Amino acid sequence: MNFKIPFKGRGHSYTQDEIDLVSNIMADSNTLTQGKYLLEFEKKYQSYIGVDYAFAMSSATAALEIAAQLCLFNGEDEVVIPSHTYTATAYPFVKKGARVIWADIDPLKRVATAETISKCITKNTKAIIIVHLYGFAADMTEIRQLADQNNLILIEDCAQSLGTEVNGKKAGSYGDFSIFSHHSQKNISTLGEGGILIASDKDQASIIPMLRHNGHSSFENIKQYWKPAMSNVDFPKYNGIELEPNNFCLGEPQCALGAKIIDRIEDVNNLKRERAIQFIDSLANSSLLEFHRVNNTRHNYQHLVAEVKNNKRDIFIEKMAYEMGVQCITQYYPLYRYPYYIKHGYGKANCPNTDQFFDNMVSFPFYETMTDSELDYMTDATRKTLEQI
Amino acid sequence: MNFKIPFKGRGHSYTQDEIDLVSNIMADSNTLTQGKYLLEFEKKYQSYIGVDYAFAMSSATAALEIAAQLCLFNGEDEVVIPSHTYTATAYPFVKKGARVIWADIDPLKRVATAETISKCITKNTKAIIIVHLYGFAADMTEIRQLADQNNLILIEDCAQSLGTEVNGKKAGSYGDFSIFSHHSQKNISTLGEGGILIASDKDQASIIPMLRHNGHSSFENIKQYWKPAMSNVDFPKYNGIELEPNNFCLGEPQCALGAKIIDRIEDVNNLKRERAIQFIDSLANSSLLEFHRVNNTRHNYQHLVAEVKNNKRDIFIEKMAYEMGVQCITQYYPLYRYPYYIKHGYGKANCPNTDQFFDNMVSFPFYETMTDSELDYMTDATRKTLEQI
Repeated sequence: MNFKIPFKGRGHSYTQDEIDLVSNIMADSNTLTQGKYLLEFEKKYQSYIGVDYAFAMSSATAALEIAAQLCLFNGEDEVVIPSHTYTATAYPFVKKGARVIWADIDPLKRVATAETISKCITKNTKAIIIVHLYGFAADMTEIRQLADQNNLILIEDCAQSLGTEVNGKKAGSYGDFSIFSHHSQKNISTLGEGGILIASDKDQASIIPMLRHNGHSSFENIKQYWKPAMSNVDFPKYNGIELEPNNFCLGEPQCALGAKIIDRIEDVNNLKRERAIQFIDSLANSSLLEFHRVNNTRHNYQHLVAEVKNNKRDIFIEKMAYEMGVQCITQYYPLYRYPYYIKHGYGKANCPNTDQFFDNMVSFPFYETMTDSELDYMTDATRKTLEQI
Repeated sequence: MNFKIPFKGRGHSYTQDEIDLVSNIMADSNTLTQGKYLLEFEKKYQSYIGVDYAFAMSSATAALEIAAQLCLFNGEDEVVIPSHTYTATAYPFVKKGARVIWADIDPLKRVATAETISKCITKNTKAIIIVHLYGFAADMTEIRQLADQNNLILIEDCAQSLGTEVNGKKAGSYGDFSIFSHHSQKNISTLGEGGILIASDKDQASIIPMLRHNGHSSFENIKQYWKPAMSNVDFPKYNGIELEPNNFCLGEPQCALGAKIIDRIEDVNNLKRERAIQFIDSLANSSLLEFHRVNNTRHNYQHLVAEVKNNKRDIFIEKMAYEMGVQCITQYYPLYRYPYYIKHGYGKANCPNTDQFFDNMVSFPFYETMTDSELDYMTDATRKTLEQI
């Protein structure tokens, strides 16, 4: 079916300067991986988020895989994760041996809180994953405090929240690890795939390049550049534990693009926030849709979602799709309902707010390239649909 | 130090058409991942290699990780691997629990043979990895026969050998799995990173997309596109064994570029082979350098290597570097010498040809963009250096 306004896999457009940058790198003769743009991208990220260590990765999932490795889970170690998120938030921790405890969300904020997380903490808890879902940064002051009080590793999943702030500090600057995504659907993308891992500990940061790049390190006391070989291959080692390497490298054109495009993340975020607020306010007369309205830098409206009241969700989406041509969808399926997690033994949860929200939620098509007239059309279509149901 | 002819991390240049293709994809509004170019790239590869299933991956290492998963190693299972290769050939199999047995190389061909491999086969052998190193395709008819006689899984590492042929069939069409690399240094590159996994078994091929993309699959009996969610997440399952998913996706600009640039792999290979033969023949008067001269499609001369006789290797590289400005290097360090493999218990091997070759070998700078005058300079510099040592 051809929708008038599809739910797109593409978050934004590129400027001519950004296109030219990639063209120029393709046209020059420098290496296309592990070069100067990798370092430039990482430096830009460090400075923008306000952290000491940032590492470019092939995806945000790759960043989470390495964060999970560095948690050194064993035995009965547990990790608290909100189940209302994309599967890549959680499965790297399952793969690395952590036992998952599902945290519920706040019914309006649609993210976990210090309160919902604290209910999940046991003597076995080793780490907390907080997800700034839809682009809203969670209560990081309280959650950081909770992690500190319980001596827990805190990991921020900022896949959707680049550029958001809590109490004057960027999302991603609170965690022991933080991850970002530049997947196609995000507010800025590095040619469709790509991620960032932020680490706060110097010893961990020192081995992340090895974990990312096949275990490569330098030989010591080298006198001749070619001997014994161009580079060593060893175990990345943290706290005496030897970790297996990966290949999660990101190419130079993607790194260069990331380093440049991050300069306009706030423009994209501001545009999306203004339009989200305009859309929300235009529909304020109806009590059928409940939005989370945040008109400041704590929300970047990566996604525009609402709860549909009175069990009208399915009829709302159906009419929007087949009568109005607007492709609304539902996201994010509570992870404990997926066969993958059920088979792993994580099919049970006490997350009534997650169930209630997911079973009644709608996610509207929403991307930077949506035109004013498309937004007007979607607003009218929504108003008419609400009147009919 | 600035070399007159450096050993470059970049294998080739892009044409204006290739640059324009990437620009056009950046400028359009379609998804940047998991789209139509992924399918186009995979179809082109299937048709070019002459196989039924090809899957684009974020890297060749990622392709090897999935091949290793699908081998379903357990217990005492062994895998035979030549140690004269890049580390990414081997460590994915170590991570997946196989015990490594190192195969020696043929002293002139510099790759493993049916004879060197057969010496490593025991009752525990489950798989053979053959590497077409430097761009020379190994004796695949004999090696395929050996694998069949012993009921072994055969994996071709074609990272350096795209476009080469053995007995009229492409390298990569003999294995149960085959992998290709489009890393920056290769004869063709998809923006610095990228790989391909070829599979021959229909059941394995059916789950590779799930293994690559976070365990995603379709819900059965869907009536509404949005319910219960946009896609399912489950275990990829092969032979009753549930396998953990990964995120090894490759973006659309890279896939589109790969689909286009594969059309001129034979031009690049032919150019490199002609120049390699010209270089080798220009130096035929000296008995100090022993090349592997193959003037047909069985060799693409991804790398141009030679053995330096009479213990003159170090002095040769030193003079070439510091007197001539030509940055020769040594590769590939026998894997059993790296700390990573030693600590895993794979530090011992019976590979005299590997030791002999590696300890006396030189790899010359060699890339598609080398000019005629650079090649002439390197030839003269080599000749002069050989006269002096």
